[in-house]
Amino acid sequence: MSGQEEWHNSPIGVFDSGVGGLTVAREIMRQLPNERIVYFGDTARVPYGNKSKETVTKFSRQIVNFLKKQEVKAIVVACNTVSAYALEELEQETDIPIIGVMKPGARAAILATKNKKVGVIATEATVHSGIYTRYIKENDANVSTLERACPLFVPLVEEGLWEDPVTDEIARRYLSELIDSGIDTLILGCTHYPMLRSTVAKIMGEGVTLVNPAYETARELKMLLAEKGLESEHRPGLGTELYRFYVSDGAEKFKQLANSILTYGILSAKVVNIEEY
Amino acid sequence: MSGQEEWHNSPIGVFDSGVGGLTVAREIMRQLPNERIVYFGDTARVPYGNKSKETVTKFSRQIVNFLKKQEVKAIVVACNTVSAYALEELEQETDIPIIGVMKPGARAAILATKNKKVGVIATEATVHSGIYTRYIKENDANVSTLERACPLFVPLVEEGLWEDPVTDEIARRYLSELIDSGIDTLILGCTHYPMLRSTVAKIMGEGVTLVNPAYETARELKMLLAEKGLESEHRPGLGTELYRFYVSDGAEKFKQLANSILTYGILSAKVVNIEEY
Repeated sequence: MSGQEEWHNSPIGVFDSGVGGLTVAREIMRQLPNERIVYFGDTARVPYGNKSKETVTKFSRQIVNFLKKQEVKAIVVACNTVSAYALEELEQETDIPIIGVMKPGARAAILATKNKKVGVIATEATVHSGIYTRYIKENDANVSTLERACPLFVPLVEEGLWEDPVTDEIARRYLSELIDSGIDTLILGCTHYPMLRSTVAKIMGEGVTLVNPAYETARELKMLLAEKGLESEHRPGLGTELYRFYVSDGAEKFKQLANSILTYGILSAKVVNIEEY
Repeated sequence: MSGQEEWHNSPIGVFDSGVGGLTVAREIMRQLPNERIVYFGDTARVPYGNKSKETVTKFSRQIVNFLKKQEVKAIVVACNTVSAYALEELEQETDIPIIGVMKPGARAAILATKNKKVGVIATEATVHSGIYTRYIKENDANVSTLERACPLFVPLVEEGLWEDPVTDEIARRYLSELIDSGIDTLILGCTHYPMLRSTVAKIMGEGVTLVNPAYETARELKMLLAEKGLESEHRPGLGTELYRFYVSDGAEKFKQLANSILTYGILSAKVVNIEEY
């Protein structure tokens, strides 16, 4: 750090268990084009969604330590499972602002619902935590919620079956109870799920609004930076590393998947031994 | 260790990335009822099948260190991915016998095939390594092989969809090329796959012999112990911990899945911080 006056030009740290968080990074790139980003994907230990609170918290703490070494000015937890299990501990332990995807997602759903019935689809861990329901109730006690875990969605996305009869069949099973319940708003409560948006939209039907927390998270980040005077003053020039990508395993494979999510090419991704942090 | 004379009564170490290796442990329990077992499942970092050689080797080395601390007399690598990527390094680094599942599986397939055409289904990592083909060719250069990765099989098993129309459809896609190739023998090259045996058998048809390397691995272990004078002399009595189970995360969930694989109840599973080894 070359001095306090430079701090607002530091990058934003964004992390996820793997590539899914790039859907959040993509929204930050769109809405905050002046901001540099350091992205970390924990590809050696992915997935988090079926692991315990203790393990997810331990892994997240190591990543926060890594990002702090990169001198980030704020951290976005682009992973619903981490947001559900570890965000409160991480906030208490860390002296820079940390935001998750769940509070923004919950607020967006409350604004979207007209019949006060909101559904949530997410990993087992996120559903088990019940935190989407808690956040929604805290904001509007009149909204009722129904949460449903969709454990096969992440492997189906990672296999590239974004639109496929098998994905349709699995989605029909996962979503049937949500359709019957009459919700008018559905939170895509896992960063992989926006890739299945068209499948989910087709099965839920036109009357149901799909909420992607990534969009709201980037908006919240923008407000937070403004509030704290942490906005970058100008778009970093050519030659400045605008976006840097780190993973704990498989840099090549990450780059391939990342390039199908982001609209521009990732120049490089470096491997980090995350267990040392 | 209370002395060299007690060494042959030490337990066998068995490990896997998760619960799948219990299909191998089960065979050892059946064929070597006098042997005690220490099982480790790396449930905090599962799955291994889509991770790199470096990462899989690092994780395996930590587990071998843990098992050596448990004073095991031999180690069975009950994971095809580890056998494919790390077995040779582990053998060189370790002073107790280590056996994998691939060599026994390859030998069993060579004995089973009549038309000298063998198929292999496995994780991406195992197929990418090409080691089943190498082991088969080393034993019988006249046998031709066809390997096919089945990346959705592990999540489908872990979701309990052992017999399901979706699993049938995915299996039909993965297996079609193998059916067309005219193989008469198919290696179930991932420890999760025996749970899908009836689905795979139905799709491959009666003319194809399915080889489960777990059975041959337990046989090879028996011969190895006899050769080295390491056989346990008598069945441990009541009150002795015959089988001990350790995981890196989620002991309760492990116990549930384990009890559906093993024929007797697991009394307990302990969580170990494997990154410290």
